[in-house]
This record gives sequence, C-alpha cells and structure tokens, in this order.
Amino acid sequence: MNPLDNIRVVLVHTSNAGNIGAAARAMKNMGLSHLYLVSPHRYPADEATWRAANAADLLDRAVVVETFDEAVAGCALAVGSSARERSIPWPLLDARRACAQIYTEAQRHGVALVFGREDRGLTNEELQKCQLHINIPSNPEYSSLNLAMAVQVIAYELRMLQVAGTLPADAMTGWDLDYANADAVERLFTHFEQALSAMGFLKADAPKQTMTRLRRLFQRTRLDTMEVNILRGILTSAQYWVRKAGGGKPDGDGS
Amino acid sequence: MNPLDNIRVVLVHTSNAGNIGAAARAMKNMGLSHLYLVSPHRYPADEATWRAANAADLLDRAVVVETFDEAVAGCALAVGSSARERSIPWPLLDARRACAQIYTEAQRHGVALVFGREDRGLTNEELQKCQLHINIPSNPEYSSLNLAMAVQVIAYELRMLQVAGTLPADAMTGWDLDYANADAVERLFTHFEQALSAMGFLKADAPKQTMTRLRRLFQRTRLDTMEVNILRGILTSAQYWVRKAGGGKPDGDGS
Repeated sequence: MNPLDNIRVVLVHTSNAGNIGAAARAMKNMGLSHLYLVSPHRYPADEATWRAANAADLLDRAVVVETFDEAVAGCALAVGSSARERSIPWPLLDARRACAQIYTEAQRHGVALVFGREDRGLTNEELQKCQLHINIPSNPEYSSLNLAMAVQVIAYELRMLQVAGTLPADAMTGWDLDYANADAVERLFTHFEQALSAMGFLKADAPKQTMTRLRRLFQRTRLDTMEVNILRGILTSAQYWVRKAGGGKPDGDGS
Repeated sequence: MNPLDNIRVVLVHTSNAGNIGAAARAMKNMGLSHLYLVSPHRYPADEATWRAANAADLLDRAVVVETFDEAVAGCALAVGSSARERSIPWPLLDARRACAQIYTEAQRHGVALVFGREDRGLTNEELQKCQLHINIPSNPEYSSLNLAMAVQVIAYELRMLQVAGTLPADAMTGWDLDYANADAVERLFTHFEQALSAMGFLKADAPKQTMTRLRRLFQRTRLDTMEVNILRGILTSAQYWVRKAGGGKPDGDGS
C-alpha cells in the first residue's frame, strides 16, 4: 500500500477556516488524503472551500470529531507539531528526520500528524499524548509558521520520500509485534493513574510530575501490544494487593 | 555574509494580494528578507498586510517594479518556478537540488527566485530569461501549488541548508536528565523480578517471557535517572502492599 494513505493530518481547534482549506490543498498537492478536524471553530465555511481550490473533495471527506483522542484513535504513532521549548523535553525531530520515521512507519500502521491552534499550538496535555514531536526549523526572530504552511512543509517532506523511492532505515524494522494503538496506550495511562493513586504513590504536590514522566517514558518507547498487556497486568496485580490489604492511600491524597 | 541575504524572491503579476502577504511571512519565517513585486494587480492591500502577520516589515521594504528585467537586475542567477513540461526543455531541478545550487551561488552573488502568476505561472519568455528552472515534486493528479506555498517550500529548503550541521540528529537531544547507568538499570531489573515474584505475577511456565520483554522494553527506551527512580518507587510501593496484605504468592511460584 501507499504509505501516504496511512497518514492522517489532524487539525486541532482551528480558528481560521481558510487555513483548513489551504491545508487540504497542500495535502492533496503532495498526495495526502485523510484530514481530521477536531472541533474546528467554524466549519464548513466558504473560505475553506475557496482556499481548498481543487482539493474540495478532500474537504468533503474530512472527518470532524470532538476530541483529540478520537482523531488519533487507531494510529500507532501520533506526531505533534511543536514550536516551543518544553520544561520537560519530549523526543523531538526536525521535519526531515521526523518524516523519515513517519514514512517508514506508515508502511505498517496508521500515523497521525497533529497540528494545533493558530495562536497557541497544541496544549501540553495534547503534546504529551504524542510519541514524537516535530519541529520545522525557522528564523528565531519570527518562528511562527502559518498553520497551513506547516502542513505544506511536512507534506512536502513526505512527498520527497515517496519520490525518492528509497526507505530510511529504522531500528525497529522486523519487530515481532504490532505497536499498540493510541487509544490502547491512553487506557494504559488511565490504569496507571488509578493504580498509583490506590497505592498512594501519586502525591498532591507531585514534585516529580510522575504521570507526565511516565507518559513521556512510555510514549517515546513506542509500546507494542504485548508490553501494554504486561504493564496492565502488573497494575492489576498491584491493585489486587492494595484491596487485599484493605485498600487505602497511606501517604497521600492519591490525586 | 549570510547567503540568505543574497537571495531575493520575485513575484510576477500576482493577482491575489493575500498571497503576497503569505509569501512575505513564509520568507521571514525562513530567514529570507528581500521581496520584489513585478506589477502586482493590487498592492498595497489590507489582505497582504493581514496575511503577512509579523512580516509586515518585509512588505514595507518590498521593491515594486514594472518589469521582470528590473526585478532580476544585479543577480547572476535567476531561477524560475516551473510546473509545466516545456516544449523546449530547460535545465530543471527539483526544489531540493535547485536550492543546493542556489545556496552555494548565493555565497558569491545575488540570486533571484522568480514565481509567476497564480493561474498561468511564468510565460515562456520569462522562463527563458532564467538560467535554471525549479520544480516542486507534487501529486500528478493535482500538481498546482498555491503561490505562497511554493515560496514556503523553497524557502524552507534554503533554511535547511543554512541550519545543516546544527540540527539535532537525535530525538533525545536536549534531554533534561542524564541517561541511567547500566548498573542502575540492572538493579531495576532485579527489583522488578523481586517485586513481580512477591506479587505472584511471574509464573513458572512464563508463557510471555515477562522479564525478557520488560528488559527489551526498558533497554530500548534508554531510561533516564529519574525514570529509574520512579519505577523503583512504584515497585517498592507494590512490595509494601503485598507485605501489608500478609505477603504471599497467590497464583504462582514467584520464580
């Protein structure tokens, strides 16, 4: 199959409908076809259709959903567009290197390319649901690309990989199991939070930002399906022992 | 000198003022600063200023001229953007390869990057005033990029040449913590084995090869020092609950 058909572009809370149309055109120009819109402010809109030009078919087939999680469900890799320095660094690649990984993985499973709001990008919470962050190198004096322009640059990098005909190497090629999908990984984090709360391990003040650090650990490592099962099995076992001991949260509020 | 300062972007007979603004923003985002406009249909225009966002300074300094020849005067290389097959082939490179040449030459002399009309591109006469044609690889089913998008892609390729050698090659560059040492990671695996045994999670038959899979998971992820501490803290907490519940290995031999 064509790897580009395994890649979806997700636009989160886009405020300018024109950007949606321009992104659709950029996608079609480069051979991408799956557009997801998370709660766009105004859509459908004439401005979107006008800017899409001959990519109106792609707009017509766009999937509009309410939440980030719905938009990335079924994808084993979610890549978040990130401009800013983060207090807790996340795996981050420039557009060219990130696209090499995206294109390689898209031969095996779904990949979501996620772009945030025009004014504020993706929230920390959204970025922490991604395994990888992607950044377009830019002028430090004015680094904020228009949303559709960012889609264009990344789509172009993917197209260049397709026309190159050669595949970048990937350390994980030939893995024995599929990567877990984004929704399965989210359920794992929910399970972690519940179990660690019951164990009294998560403290109210959370000086170590435990959940964020666990999220970063397991997002960057690209869990496979059996690993998710093993970790959830361990958590279930821990919950069993807490209940058997009479439950409780001995040294914290379990928040 | 910075080669990017030796490159000018020339927009010929642009009909949509918004595209001029968007091109200016794309240029500034990528570190280009010299914009020439050949007989724009409508300029200055609010739409241009609005789309330029924080690149309004670049618009203010744009040079508006009457003819193609005035716009490329003083440049030793003029590169014309070309989408179409020509009856008489001209030297033509894709964006990446053309930009390599442009960037190299811009260290010595002025280079003009010329973009044509939204609907018809550059005329044959204009293209024949260029030494080189540049083409952005695109989807044959819809190959016509928006004008400002084409400027963005080419400006991005030039930026990539400028930052080459300075980009992190590794997704983990700039991590906030040191990687854990091998001995600390080994102690973590010992701790896992002890805790999971006490919890009764490791079975004698070990159908899932749990420890091997945990080892593979945490070895490939390159644990940092705090992650080791968090994981060991979780294991210690689980051991506490097992002891509190009266210890035991409810469903296995704990080997």
